[in-house]
Amino acid sequence: MKGKFITLEGGEGCGKSTQARLLSAYLQNKGIEVITTKEPGGTPEGKILRELLVTGDKDKFDAIAECLLYYADRRCHLTKLVWPAMDEGKWVISDRYADSTEAYQYYGYNKRVEHQILENMYQIVAGDFKPDLTLILDIDPEVGMRRSFAKAEAMEVKELRFESRQLEFHKNLRQGFLEIAKREPERCIVLNADTTVEDLHHEIVRVVNEKLGIE
Amino acid sequence: MKGKFITLEGGEGCGKSTQARLLSAYLQNKGIEVITTKEPGGTPEGKILRELLVTGDKDKFDAIAECLLYYADRRCHLTKLVWPAMDEGKWVISDRYADSTEAYQYYGYNKRVEHQILENMYQIVAGDFKPDLTLILDIDPEVGMRRSFAKAEAMEVKELRFESRQLEFHKNLRQGFLEIAKREPERCIVLNADTTVEDLHHEIVRVVNEKLGIE
Repeated sequence: MKGKFITLEGGEGCGKSTQARLLSAYLQNKGIEVITTKEPGGTPEGKILRELLVTGDKDKFDAIAECLLYYADRRCHLTKLVWPAMDEGKWVISDRYADSTEAYQYYGYNKRVEHQILENMYQIVAGDFKPDLTLILDIDPEVGMRRSFAKAEAMEVKELRFESRQLEFHKNLRQGFLEIAKREPERCIVLNADTTVEDLHHEIVRVVNEKLGIE
Repeated sequence: MKGKFITLEGGEGCGKSTQARLLSAYLQNKGIEVITTKEPGGTPEGKILRELLVTGDKDKFDAIAECLLYYADRRCHLTKLVWPAMDEGKWVISDRYADSTEAYQYYGYNKRVEHQILENMYQIVAGDFKPDLTLILDIDPEVGMRRSFAKAEAMEVKELRFESRQLEFHKNLRQGFLEIAKREPERCIVLNADTTVEDLHHEIVRVVNEKLGIE
């Protein structure tokens, strides 16, 4: 495939979508055709699956059924959007991809799905295809969550309490992303996201230039 | 698990749902608690997935995404209905199960999904769990399709033409079910479905008695 596939990963409030937008603008300025997208829900079919996953009783699907639906969404995303765009020479920037499934289902939820099962699903859906570059925007979960809260504006005490119960989960999630980066250091670059939007953008530009040969 | 799991498989017009009903009545008469169900769509969540699979553009999901959705449905079916019922000692009769996915996706559609992929999905969703008995209702596709047509009553010539183009598919499908039965002769019993409803029911009762020890 002629284009490149860049994924942005990280926990709540790490700034993925803002940085995806800024990186897209930077690359377009360099004359590269760019598509920004996301998982789940990057395609019309994926939007229906996303809706299924995020609405109603949170236990309506068990962990394995949930992963199968995330992977069905991923398969639609790859076959209908990511791969065709890359074949045309476009670069694709995705807000979340398979590392999120691994970080949430395996690390965040304390290994509720076996690692081998996630690997098998990945192989079924994507074969040997991998992102050319994965940017892991790393932030202390307490800082990230404060940012998410600030964004949500009018927040009630009840919500704060809920999030505080979940702090352990978010710490595991962060650890998960760091483990993935340690396992695949060529593909995954960890960046400190506890900084200004501008500084993080400059860091991302530096990494993209170095790794993917932009000048 | 204390209960038994019986699956009925076969092509169009082979009489699965009628026979499931009759078998259920027979077993209940013997004092066994029985649930009759089906795939896809045996649970509320599965009904939504079934709807997704059977409506709209038939190419909206590629073969692998489609299999992932069938297996998500299967996972819901097993975890929410089949396994809990069997744990309570109930017998479950399902109109279609995993052999249908294999027969359609691998044999009917001429190996459009690799066999190993289907095996991996099965392992992820069901592990080593298998039906106690699978009844394959075998019928010449031309006879089966004539039966389906008769049931559909007011049929237009256009539909006939469509079905005749599909005859090859249905022949492959039949062959697929027979291959599965050859591979797993202990679990799968092939029965001639080109007979009366009563005769087929008596054959099924004979097999169930023999295989599952009813008297």
